Amino acid sequence: MAYINLPNTQLPGIVGLFDFRKDTGKILADLAELLLRGPSTLTSGEREIIASSVSYWNDCHFCHTSHAAAAKAHLGAGMELFDQIKAGFPDVEISSKLKALLLIAQQVQKGTKHVLQSDVDFAKDCGADDLEIHDTVLIAAAFCMYNRYVDCLNTWAPEHNEEYVSMGERMAHVGYGKTIRATES
Amino acid sequence: MAYINLPNTQLPGIVGLFDFRKDTGKILADLAELLLRGPSTLTSGEREIIASSVSYWNDCHFCHTSHAAAAKAHLGAGMELFDQIKAGFPDVEISSKLKALLLIAQQVQKGTKHVLQSDVDFAKDCGADDLEIHDTVLIAAAFCMYNRYVDCLNTWAPEHNEEYVSMGERMAHVGYGKTIRATES
Repeated sequence: MAYINLPNTQLPGIVGLFDFRKDTGKILADLAELLLRGPSTLTSGEREIIASSVSYWNDCHFCHTSHAAAAKAHLGAGMELFDQIKAGFPDVEISSKLKALLLIAQQVQKGTKHVLQSDVDFAKDCGADDLEIHDTVLIAAAFCMYNRYVDCLNTWAPEHNEEYVSMGERMAHVGYGKTIRATES
Repeated sequence: MAYINLPNTQLPGIVGLFDFRKDTGKILADLAELLLRGPSTLTSGEREIIASSVSYWNDCHFCHTSHAAAAKAHLGAGMELFDQIKAGFPDVEISSKLKALLLIAQQVQKGTKHVLQSDVDFAKDCGADDLEIHDTVLIAAAFCMYNRYVDCLNTWAPEHNEEYVSMGERMAHVGYGKTIRATES
């Protein structure tokens, strides 16, 4: 049960918090929309994999699973994607550029002083440009915020991967702003 | 030197990043404006102390010092406030409610699973309400994002406290949106 009284206890994870304080919720949803579905040379599927991976490293079940479901919806992947993200893609082909960006995201998750020049040089050697590196750092940093927001207020989350599939489809194909604002009615 | 090529290398910390990608910069500035200067039963000085403290725990010199300067501007405090924030207020009177909220913020900084029901109960015993607890968690979480954004891209920051005083006055009295957008001209 959440540490604060939320008006609608049926809404899971961050959705209940966006409903509790709608003005901050709108900005946080707009940020997710821009970072994950806005114009980028990284596909939305790749960006959702970064978001879901950071959330897994932060031990945030709601964000890890919902963003894995969004990645699945973008990529047309199977249910195994949830576990592949947790395991660091041992059996699924992802590009060397995305692997290098995930290494940067993992350093961002650890704290403020872990990304090294050599991590950035390696990503550039794998084909990443400055904007892709910038966006990877900001996505990873933003999920260090979202994950804490969700779990430090002890919100509830559905348990099983299957329960997130339709949520991920809405996140991927309808978007964050509209998905969230639909709860305001 | 920053890990990516910024168009204006004279702009310090997050200001240079907001100039590099203006659409994300606008949303991040709007979030800071709402969290730190928007309507709240916590004063802006109290909220800047939370922001500066989290940034200090995250070892982010730019954010710690600039937000300490903003707190100083709001509170009319002296230069000793910078060091008092670092030391946890051994010699300056702050309310028991703010002390309890800082304890929550410190747990948020550590990760997603550190805030306990007892931390929240203690803050409520000290007079904090649900919205103040929510906002403290979100401010602390947001600075876990801002701090990583600034330092994981290795932006530069002025060294000495005195160099942040006028920046803090602008942040406190002009605001985040206008301070940032002034760099777009």
